[in-house]
Amino acid sequence: MAPPGRRAMVHRRTTIRDMPLFLEDFAVGQKYGSGKMKVDAAAIKAFAATFDPQPFHLDEDAARASFFGGLAASGWHTAALTMRILVEGELRPAGGIIGTWAEELKWPRAVRPGDELEVEAEILEVRPSRKGPAHGYVKCRTTTLNQNREPVQVLVMSLLVQTRREPGDQESK
Amino acid sequence: MAPPGRRAMVHRRTTIRDMPLFLEDFAVGQKYGSGKMKVDAAAIKAFAATFDPQPFHLDEDAARASFFGGLAASGWHTAALTMRILVEGELRPAGGIIGTWAEELKWPRAVRPGDELEVEAEILEVRPSRKGPAHGYVKCRTTTLNQNREPVQVLVMSLLVQTRREPGDQESK
Repeated sequence: MAPPGRRAMVHRRTTIRDMPLFLEDFAVGQKYGSGKMKVDAAAIKAFAATFDPQPFHLDEDAARASFFGGLAASGWHTAALTMRILVEGELRPAGGIIGTWAEELKWPRAVRPGDELEVEAEILEVRPSRKGPAHGYVKCRTTTLNQNREPVQVLVMSLLVQTRREPGDQESK
Repeated sequence: MAPPGRRAMVHRRTTIRDMPLFLEDFAVGQKYGSGKMKVDAAAIKAFAATFDPQPFHLDEDAARASFFGGLAASGWHTAALTMRILVEGELRPAGGIIGTWAEELKWPRAVRPGDELEVEAEILEVRPSRKGPAHGYVKCRTTTLNQNREPVQVLVMSLLVQTRREPGDQESK
């Protein structure tokens, strides 16, 4: 358990943006917060049974004897939880959160039973698409933090984002 | 549906390695195959409901009107399925498949209901760890293919792999 003082110091902006964001609304340096989500041992084991059935994700005793020294969530579970938190967070591009490619994905430490995760997103780059005026790309770094503010995942991904087009614009096919 | 001829031409090596692979067993250029796994609409929607609840992953009608033009699996579902296929495939490092960081992750096309996926892994780099002699890193590219041999995911990830140590070696703590 983390000392309660360290957890209580986390403050979140209270204004969740309800308006979808178009490419023109994004700028380098913007930050977007999220709510929090707890993960327990049952969820860690259930994900692993379906997608990553290795002993250190499935069984406490086997996990103690492994590299992880205790039950640890699959990195892909951490990634999936991050997406869930992100979809319900402040970053709301028009047309949805559509990832295209990532140039960095790392798991500096494992997610453990009882961890409470949140996600901070920062805009690193905004650029038009060469394929046409209807979409562009927003590169963002999402950092997934546990209840001690330690990063459990860092992901740098480019999202496909719609541009704000005037009414009557023809979609180029 | 793919023409049957294209599917039948896929041949897999029949020898699955049962012996775990240590760092010394890996070399640049080695390739490892996998079995196949089918994904249906129910699985796509179930994953999305838990981890990526956006309309184009949850509902056929909403998906038709979206960027995807039809129901599409979350990229994180594709990643998780890739891990499952990999864990049961030919690449079997001693101590398990433990990813540390990825320098590339992309989804060139969406996974659709009825797709059958397989994973091909190629070793790109083998190097010792600076942290000690017990582990090293194996960088590999996994390409996830659908039944038409089209890539649906490319991932370049460094795995943590145990070295083959002589009996009596002391583990450095």
